[in-house]
Amino acid sequence: MTTRLHGGGCPPAQAPARPSSVRALQKYGRDGRPGCACGATAAPQESRALSDIQVGEGVARVAVLGASGYTGAEVVRLGALHPNLKIAALTADRQAGKAFSDVFPHLVTATDVPELAKIDDVDFHNIDAAFCCLPHATTQKIIASLPPSIRVVDLSADFRLRDTATYKEWYGGDHQAPELQKEAVYGLTEIFRSAIQSARLVANPGCYPTSICLPLFPLLQQQLVQKDGIIIDAKSGVTGAGRSPAESKLFCEVADGMHAYGVSSHRHMPEIEQCLSDAAGFPVRVSFTPHLVPMSRGMMSTIYVQMSEGVTANTLRSALQHFYDAEPFVKVLPAGTFPQTRHVRGSNLNLIGVSEDRLSGRAIILSVIDNLVKGASGQAIQNMNLVLGVDETTGLMQQPLFP
Amino acid sequence: MTTRLHGGGCPPAQAPARPSSVRALQKYGRDGRPGCACGATAAPQESRALSDIQVGEGVARVAVLGASGYTGAEVVRLGALHPNLKIAALTADRQAGKAFSDVFPHLVTATDVPELAKIDDVDFHNIDAAFCCLPHATTQKIIASLPPSIRVVDLSADFRLRDTATYKEWYGGDHQAPELQKEAVYGLTEIFRSAIQSARLVANPGCYPTSICLPLFPLLQQQLVQKDGIIIDAKSGVTGAGRSPAESKLFCEVADGMHAYGVSSHRHMPEIEQCLSDAAGFPVRVSFTPHLVPMSRGMMSTIYVQMSEGVTANTLRSALQHFYDAEPFVKVLPAGTFPQTRHVRGSNLNLIGVSEDRLSGRAIILSVIDNLVKGASGQAIQNMNLVLGVDETTGLMQQPLFP
Amino acid sequence: MTTRLHGGGCPPAQAPARPSSVRALQKYGRDGRPGCACGATAAPQESRALSDIQVGEGVARVAVLGASGYTGAEVVRLGALHPNLKIAALTADRQAGKAFSDVFPHLVTATDVPELAKIDDVDFHNIDAAFCCLPHATTQKIIASLPPSIRVVDLSADFRLRDTATYKEWYGGDHQAPELQKEAVYGLTEIFRSAIQSARLVANPGCYPTSICLPLFPLLQQQLVQKDGIIIDAKSGVTGAGRSPAESKLFCEVADGMHAYGVSSHRHMPEIEQCLSDAAGFPVRVSFTPHLVPMSRGMMSTIYVQMSEGVTANTLRSALQHFYDAEPFVKVLPAGTFPQTRHVRGSNLNLIGVSEDRLSGRAIILSVIDNLVKGASGQAIQNMNLVLGVDETTGLMQQPLFP
Amino acid sequence: MTTRLHGGGCPPAQAPARPSSVRALQKYGRDGRPGCACGATAAPQESRALSDIQVGEGVARVAVLGASGYTGAEVVRLGALHPNLKIAALTADRQAGKAFSDVFPHLVTATDVPELAKIDDVDFHNIDAAFCCLPHATTQKIIASLPPSIRVVDLSADFRLRDTATYKEWYGGDHQAPELQKEAVYGLTEIFRSAIQSARLVANPGCYPTSICLPLFPLLQQQLVQKDGIIIDAKSGVTGAGRSPAESKLFCEVADGMHAYGVSSHRHMPEIEQCLSDAAGFPVRVSFTPHLVPMSRGMMSTIYVQMSEGVTANTLRSALQHFYDAEPFVKVLPAGTFPQTRHVRGSNLNLIGVSEDRLSGRAIILSVIDNLVKGASGQAIQNMNLVLGVDETTGLMQQPLFP
Repeated sequence: MTTRLHGGGCPPAQAPARPSSVRALQKYGRDGRPGCACGATAAPQESRALSDIQVGEGVARVAVLGASGYTGAEVVRLGALHPNLKIAALTADRQAGKAFSDVFPHLVTATDVPELAKIDDVDFHNIDAAFCCLPHATTQKIIASLPPSIRVVDLSADFRLRDTATYKEWYGGDHQAPELQKEAVYGLTEIFRSAIQSARLVANPGCYPTSICLPLFPLLQQQLVQKDGIIIDAKSGVTGAGRSPAESKLFCEVADGMHAYGVSSHRHMPEIEQCLSDAAGFPVRVSFTPHLVPMSRGMMSTIYVQMSEGVTANTLRSALQHFYDAEPFVKVLPAGTFPQTRHVRGSNLNLIGVSEDRLSGRAIILSVIDNLVKGASGQAIQNMNLVLGVDETTGLMQQPLFP
Repeated sequence: MTTRLHGGGCPPAQAPARPSSVRALQKYGRDGRPGCACGATAAPQESRALSDIQVGEGVARVAVLGASGYTGAEVVRLGALHPNLKIAALTADRQAGKAFSDVFPHLVTATDVPELAKIDDVDFHNIDAAFCCLPHATTQKIIASLPPSIRVVDLSADFRLRDTATYKEWYGGDHQAPELQKEAVYGLTEIFRSAIQSARLVANPGCYPTSICLPLFPLLQQQLVQKDGIIIDAKSGVTGAGRSPAESKLFCEVADGMHAYGVSSHRHMPEIEQCLSDAAGFPVRVSFTPHLVPMSRGMMSTIYVQMSEGVTANTLRSALQHFYDAEPFVKVLPAGTFPQTRHVRGSNLNLIGVSEDRLSGRAIILSVIDNLVKGASGQAIQNMNLVLGVDETTGLMQQPLFP
Repeated sequence: MTTRLHGGGCPPAQAPARPSSVRALQKYGRDGRPGCACGATAAPQESRALSDIQVGEGVARVAVLGASGYTGAEVVRLGALHPNLKIAALTADRQAGKAFSDVFPHLVTATDVPELAKIDDVDFHNIDAAFCCLPHATTQKIIASLPPSIRVVDLSADFRLRDTATYKEWYGGDHQAPELQKEAVYGLTEIFRSAIQSARLVANPGCYPTSICLPLFPLLQQQLVQKDGIIIDAKSGVTGAGRSPAESKLFCEVADGMHAYGVSSHRHMPEIEQCLSDAAGFPVRVSFTPHLVPMSRGMMSTIYVQMSEGVTANTLRSALQHFYDAEPFVKVLPAGTFPQTRHVRGSNLNLIGVSEDRLSGRAIILSVIDNLVKGASGQAIQNMNLVLGVDETTGLMQQPLFP
Repeated sequence: MTTRLHGGGCPPAQAPARPSSVRALQKYGRDGRPGCACGATAAPQESRALSDIQVGEGVARVAVLGASGYTGAEVVRLGALHPNLKIAALTADRQAGKAFSDVFPHLVTATDVPELAKIDDVDFHNIDAAFCCLPHATTQKIIASLPPSIRVVDLSADFRLRDTATYKEWYGGDHQAPELQKEAVYGLTEIFRSAIQSARLVANPGCYPTSICLPLFPLLQQQLVQKDGIIIDAKSGVTGAGRSPAESKLFCEVADGMHAYGVSSHRHMPEIEQCLSDAAGFPVRVSFTPHLVPMSRGMMSTIYVQMSEGVTANTLRSALQHFYDAEPFVKVLPAGTFPQTRHVRGSNLNLIGVSEDRLSGRAIILSVIDNLVKGASGQAIQNMNLVLGVDETTGLMQQPLFP
């Protein structure tokens, strides 16, 4: 276990702390949570290193559960160049029996993946790890039914909220696997790296929370911005809404126009507040308004914050640059430069810009990601890399596709 | 003259006040400016009624100056169905001699418009009124040189800012026609209707200010929202940037992505603040961040406000509904309904939605317009209608084009 | 009258010739067919004039059946400015009870239309005419059940094919109203104008056939192009596929890409061939390949033809210019100028360009329409105008919306 | 060697056959031409292997000339994952001194590339090979001035046409490097592979010719389709027009619409005809009409052909499947399946579908590529790989990005 590449163990005592950028987290531990105790819990997972999982070639056999949606396809797209992942099962109950390239013709050359199967027909004894891309609610039961030896990165919302009462409030039903929930590690990679390394179940963050918490977490933690009055105006591409047919997602209903949705009621709200509260050490409540923009991929969060006494936008920028200095996927832009969603398209990057506001004492933070990559499948692979003990960037170094 | 349809004269004494919605403006007069004195100044313009301008058919001969850009074309598009406007001159110095449909092939059936001419070649003695669609700075001199009998609606920024020092600060040069500036009336139609009726020079508002001030003006005026802490996250379609070629406006640089621009430095900022300060009766300073979205037309302003003590989102919505009740072009949506830019495409409508915010005491206001219509040429025609004394809605009742 | 093509004969001798614009048709009669005869047969329909339909105001009470789709909404959009149409019923069985603007928020100001109703709940005795925007197959029965006094413009495919065997072959079921079929007039307005004037049931053409037959009909009829070897490469915007949810129409499946569909098997094929065969006087068989392009509206047909001996592209262009010279909605562009779909957006225009091909003896014809307007609801209103005896251009003179 | 077509003869006797995949070419030799011969001529270039170019690490130092356009950026994007290419110089005269990521912010993590330089400031003695992404005409002189030891893949049109008279006719000026022209090898990789391997100067094909000639070359060569009556209706994304600002490429002029351009006069015409004539062994003249479609990347050619006696669409499909069976980048789809441009986005793939036409004896071939990858920079890298003697697929195995 000590040989694992990134992050190593997370016990505060020895924290090897790579990348160095995360030293700022010392107060709260490697995973950014007060009283973090991931070291202890790491023990049962000590066999997680890739060499332990699969004899021979350093290749983990992974299943993609719910592979007929965009996030499933994106795992396969990125996985195709990943030397340590072998896609051994693809499930999609209603499309079982089809070739994967019948459902996703752009992956016509991914001929080494299995055809789609019903989840009940998968022999999970041949599976080392799974990406779970299923709808929320169903996810809980399925993950609970998997052999415990399987590492899971879950892209649904089912295990993101620690408080199952909050889960019920926002998702409208009792949680079906509360015990498993306790075990889940929130997979915002750059913040909770060491806990992820030792996790059996990673709750991959939502796209909005990723774009918002990456810039805000360190700033709140370092008390550079105030916990009150955070206003987040977020904009998303349409892949964020998934592939199931609905009138509201038709080309003609989306093209050449935009609108807000889920005003004051979007389900990512409690997830954002949970993560930011962890950062601040106090409950944080935010204003969060998502908008749908006529683009397939891309997410932009424009974040308006009140700075702490004596802090300027330059302070914020410097703090973020320092915090993320060694990170391969988070880049803080120089003053006067602002990010565009199209410049991260297809990549695992998060670009962040910071500007003084015209209102005294306030700053504007602009954060962009590709919602399907860093906001979903890319971060899932990044987390899986940590879980498997391979280089965190493996399979993720493709440049953005622009134009 | 007293028989003119909309607005009538604005002397407080007799204020015929139609639509009734604008009664709320009593404190500041019909044009919403403290100490408004438009009644007196109306006198010199008493000959403005259309019947006075042109003998015979009730048709004003209008020039469109700077007709090769999008706003110029939009005046011609809307004007084509306007029974009281005859387009008598179209200028575009670099395209002089061309048929208008060579420059705008979509207007191929507008065969009754003249060909493009140099501005110096226009005989302005045959012109009753002009839409000025020229770039800022050049506009000042040209308008100053026109015969004073010509009514002008100016779509540039040149006469929007009352304070020429502010103009210089944001536009980088001394104002060339400060005397004319004093005469200009700010053309936010629903707010300054009566002053516009008696104006010789209307400074047509910018697109962002229109989308922002229509909802905020009455709320500030009625002290329902606080003047501090107004945060405006605005999004625009690409026509807002005009038709001149630039790399940043190329299809491939704009499609499938979005970004903020002019962060804390957009030139519409002082115009917004001037208008909102008029409403509040005190200087108002706002946070304003515009974004460019991959759509041709459409503008959305998401406005975050702190409400006054005891006020709720329902209060705001009711106040706006009351204020705009009789207005043909401003519609305040019921609770739980939010506007989309595509639903006003091609129309002169402004749709407004109001929502409680998750942050206590705050509300979110969503306002959409078509930036080329209510944000430019449509409002210009609306203002021209007022100036000419014809029904304010003439030529503007086409339904939005969706999809 | 039994000889009406898709309705209406039209004797050269008496050609009632309205509008006067169509004098170019003298050689072939009002229907554009050699020696056909319809004037006499107009007698039974002489009560069609609008003043006969509705006492008093010259306004026909119309129903829009199937009003929750794009073509239904487009009838309402265009009808809103139509002085002779009063929308008296809107049906949509699954949305019955909703306000129309709940289903189409862009028509929020169309407050004078009734709410959506079930078709069985409509009292058709108060209806003078109907636009039928229902899916094919169901349409047949519903139209057959309407009171015979109601004039109908049917936008479905149900009555376009004269030969019910052909209908069965392409649409997969027996025709349910074969007698009614015999009465139907094919509504390609500029070609079959006089027959439409006297029709009770107009089969409004498909979008592809409209864009193809308007240029090809006169050329085949005048034997300027050969009936063999016609190759049509057509491209459509996505509204052509309707509003019902389907994965293939989702924004993310359509944006930033294109593809052919229905290759050699599209259902508009027999309609195109029927119309062109009528023109040629011999069976015509064409190659027709439609493509889906990421735009909401717009249709472009690129038509490759072999010219007759001695004919040049200039001959073709001149013939079309002569034929359509007085038409308000069909414009033939000068040599070297080619049409763009965006230049007819929202309008009832058909723009046509003609070019010599690099292959000897061949020419290329480019034809664009807005598929929802001239390709559907606009032509439907144009036909309804003829049926009601009002000016053919009523309600249709809005300029295209560009950009 | 003087017999090389666009370079390279290729003797059937010794066909070196790399990659083994191309065994299907045995009948016509490695170049795909009957009886041509190139193996022998490989001798002078035997030093082309990468190990000869650069001592030590198997890495070639490459320059990208004209790196501020889309094709230059695309070479850098793809090259970033290429283990055998080190980008040692990037030129862009007007942007010299800027960081590459200032000009292309999406490549912000490509920190190991040099800043932009003037071409005159590059020390070409440290350069092994060059991608030339300059405008045509200037290209000729610059390539002629490079040290002869430098291998060049030229993405301009300057060396594609063997006949300099044809060049002059279509490009309007005398060719400035006619001797160099004789040496150039036409870089349609799958067809002229062996000649490319031994080339010093590769004329990378145009995007339209690539999408057209890959399917048509083997079919004409095998005499399965007739050389007369080939009609090509092609559609391109907007990147094909480059990055220089022009009104016709603005977002608002391109979005939500389409049109044909360069009708019967596009400069890719002679290139297509040259290549197809080589295939047929006789002069071939085609009808070719390009269209501009509102998408950033993607190209689709819909090709209408007359088949030879007794040939069916199935014959064509089988022949293409056989011919391209072992090719990594050309995939021929099964019957009834047709390609979409979005399914090759960002990849070097060419997908081909074949359908029977409704016209007897005719077939329809649908061919899609990403115009910036297989249509430009991807094929350039593929050719460079051949020139350098490394695996042809190196750096090109990323999956397409969809949606």
